[in-house]
Amino acid sequence: MTITITAFERSPDGGKGLARDTRVRWALEEVGQPYTVRPLSMQAMKEAAHRCLNPFGQIPTYEEGDLCLFESGAIVFHIAERCAGLLPAEANARSRAIMWMFAALNSVEPAILEIVVVKFAEGDKPWASERMPLVFDRIRQRLRPLSDRLGEAEWLDGAFSAGDLIMVSVLLRLRLSGILDEFPNLAAYVARGEARPAYQRAFVAQLAQATGNPAPV
Amino acid sequence: MTITITAFERSPDGGKGLARDTRVRWALEEVGQPYTVRPLSMQAMKEAAHRCLNPFGQIPTYEEGDLCLFESGAIVFHIAERCAGLLPAEANARSRAIMWMFAALNSVEPAILEIVVVKFAEGDKPWASERMPLVFDRIRQRLRPLSDRLGEAEWLDGAFSAGDLIMVSVLLRLRLSGILDEFPNLAAYVARGEARPAYQRAFVAQLAQATGNPAPV
Repeated sequence: MTITITAFERSPDGGKGLARDTRVRWALEEVGQPYTVRPLSMQAMKEAAHRCLNPFGQIPTYEEGDLCLFESGAIVFHIAERCAGLLPAEANARSRAIMWMFAALNSVEPAILEIVVVKFAEGDKPWASERMPLVFDRIRQRLRPLSDRLGEAEWLDGAFSAGDLIMVSVLLRLRLSGILDEFPNLAAYVARGEARPAYQRAFVAQLAQATGNPAPV
Repeated sequence: MTITITAFERSPDGGKGLARDTRVRWALEEVGQPYTVRPLSMQAMKEAAHRCLNPFGQIPTYEEGDLCLFESGAIVFHIAERCAGLLPAEANARSRAIMWMFAALNSVEPAILEIVVVKFAEGDKPWASERMPLVFDRIRQRLRPLSDRLGEAEWLDGAFSAGDLIMVSVLLRLRLSGILDEFPNLAAYVARGEARPAYQRAFVAQLAQATGNPAPV
């Protein structure tokens, strides 16, 4: 079955791996599924043809035969459910791995994405500089309990899972802010995720795309 | 198997059904699973005993035998996976229903919860009144494509699913703002969700809790 995902024709982050196609590429690499990429310009993402696939006009989408999905969490979950390697077999452990996916996307990522609002959507507003420390404090309110829970463990709950894949993908975005370094165990956790060969392959592929030299995948 | 969930001892919304235990109660009612509620004070939610269940110190949690989950999306998914009635049997339709759960929690709810930041977390800041229209505009940017996608359909993708349950639960919070009425098909969609007997039972149960008269469930 051929898998096609969409990604930015040129990622706005210049290839830092922050666009959400990276987490989908990572999941596909973890389970050894080949895929092709259909790059989209910013304009094409907002057009009706793409909104048929994702009403919110964003990347990534995922096409496999008759199935079309959007929403990176849902795509990673679909891959994890179909292919071995990203969810534990034991029922309770599986439910907890899925729990960490939802936690990353609903309890951690929204606080982190507020940085984008302050910097870009409201970057020209007089309150931008005063708001940034407040946004950072709300991020810390999420990172502190996450750090406490992780402790000295390698991954959030036993073996590496789709929960870790999404959580690392969400935390990655904080690298440049310096906040991650306030929680050394979380910084090390992210580094462990990035060191995985599957992540490396995904990163190289998105970088090649972002810099205009897409390698064959 | 006994199911125990946690909820606010007294919900800060006074029983409007906006606390996240309501969506878990609703899912349990849809599939006909009895449950008991362990109410928690604001203080108890932040203590170590509860943080063992949910590191972020929030409600709801879900206990069933050896399994303990937090994160309302993960709990609703767990219920939907175990019990018939909230996910379609056909594989692709099932994946799309799960996609709508993630979309509600990651692409719609964060924009809506910014209202809480403006009103409460930053309610005393000089920029609060000027920011509110910007937050509302970002909510509209999510509601417009959602409204276009829903069109005149009853539910997001065929029969009522866990995707609709979460999406309606997320949109409910907008009722008081008036924004929902700008998209009559979404307002009608939410009303259809609320009219379901299972939602009604969940709502009555959380209201009784919030007002100090918990009915037996």
